[in-house]
Amino acid sequence: MSEKFSFAVVLSGCGVFDGSEIHEATLVLLAIDRLGCTYQCFAPDMQQFHVINHLTGQEMSERRNVLVESARIARGHIKDLRTYAVADYDGIIFPGGFGAAKNLSTVAFDGATCKVHVEVERVLKETRAARKPIGALCISPTLVAHVLGTVDVTIGQDQSFSVLIEKMGAHHRKTSHGEVCTDYEAMVVTSPCYMLESTISQIATGAENVVKTMIELKEHERT
Amino acid sequence: MSEKFSFAVVLSGCGVFDGSEIHEATLVLLAIDRLGCTYQCFAPDMQQFHVINHLTGQEMSERRNVLVESARIARGHIKDLRTYAVADYDGIIFPGGFGAAKNLSTVAFDGATCKVHVEVERVLKETRAARKPIGALCISPTLVAHVLGTVDVTIGQDQSFSVLIEKMGAHHRKTSHGEVCTDYEAMVVTSPCYMLESTISQIATGAENVVKTMIELKEHERT
Repeated sequence: MSEKFSFAVVLSGCGVFDGSEIHEATLVLLAIDRLGCTYQCFAPDMQQFHVINHLTGQEMSERRNVLVESARIARGHIKDLRTYAVADYDGIIFPGGFGAAKNLSTVAFDGATCKVHVEVERVLKETRAARKPIGALCISPTLVAHVLGTVDVTIGQDQSFSVLIEKMGAHHRKTSHGEVCTDYEAMVVTSPCYMLESTISQIATGAENVVKTMIELKEHERT
Repeated sequence: MSEKFSFAVVLSGCGVFDGSEIHEATLVLLAIDRLGCTYQCFAPDMQQFHVINHLTGQEMSERRNVLVESARIARGHIKDLRTYAVADYDGIIFPGGFGAAKNLSTVAFDGATCKVHVEVERVLKETRAARKPIGALCISPTLVAHVLGTVDVTIGQDQSFSVLIEKMGAHHRKTSHGEVCTDYEAMVVTSPCYMLESTISQIATGAENVVKTMIELKEHERT
């Protein structure tokens, strides 16, 4: 019997408009646990770009910290992304939410010329170099496209994001609810989730399919 | 074919230590959707009792609003609990988290002599009077016990909470992971969830079993 596959899950706050999308993050953790694997949550220790009132959509005057807010989703069990060591995990996965585009990167503001957080760039490059699977949901495939360049990813069917991803040097593949785009060479697995108008069940299916495919890639790599 | 069962889901903030437990809330929404039903989230428009840093467990100096923070879990689609009308829903369900014991009531501080938020008391009494099912997870059964008195509920196996529930005039039944306690007369369905040391998969099972049982109670009532 193979050892338990251990996942690093990278969060970007707590709430779709300024952090991690809560359903996607929770359903990634559920999929990992249901498939008999383990997880450790991570987030960068940094100020959020801003705080959005999720009732009104308006910006609030307060400041919040990405690691501290992400700890809400992780029930306190979370580590600073600086401590991520590629040798300790079998794969790494990024749920979506605007936090990926506002905190982990500046893609929400700068598009294809965005900056990616230095630790996000490091962990993506190290995981790629170690030939371990990388998963990304919703808007997070833009991080992978920007850092790794020539990879196949999906963000669903949005034309402007598809163009943006091609500008980053990556290749965009259209997908629908729950479908995954797998780049076997780069070991990158992506799914659109809430980049499409979705039910929460469709998000669960997308998360599960990404996690399953990452496990299969790793198993294949071992044989 | 019967009409879709429509659930009201009452949240109490966003994060286990000062609001709704995020996994429980998300997995209640997932269970409802997967079972072919619909949901509308609600929360009271009030200040949180306090804000806890979920990384350190320490209290923070800021103030947050229960409805505004709950909107993070609901992706903005949430209503003030004052607008809940019992005629519009087939059942009501309370996920857990300390928010139930600190915001929706004072049970975390005052035990059996706690106060319950006036709107929570109203919606529980109206739902009970309309003979519609009430669900509660984790610590939330204390709300139901305090407001309705003579009901059978569970919070798992904790001795002090079991005593507290009996002091409220209700009856406590011991349960384990994923099990539900059903009071058929009062139409109250409860499950311990994170009141027991649990995996996220066990929370999903508990949430699903509560939602399923509520639907069955309602179907039975219709025949």
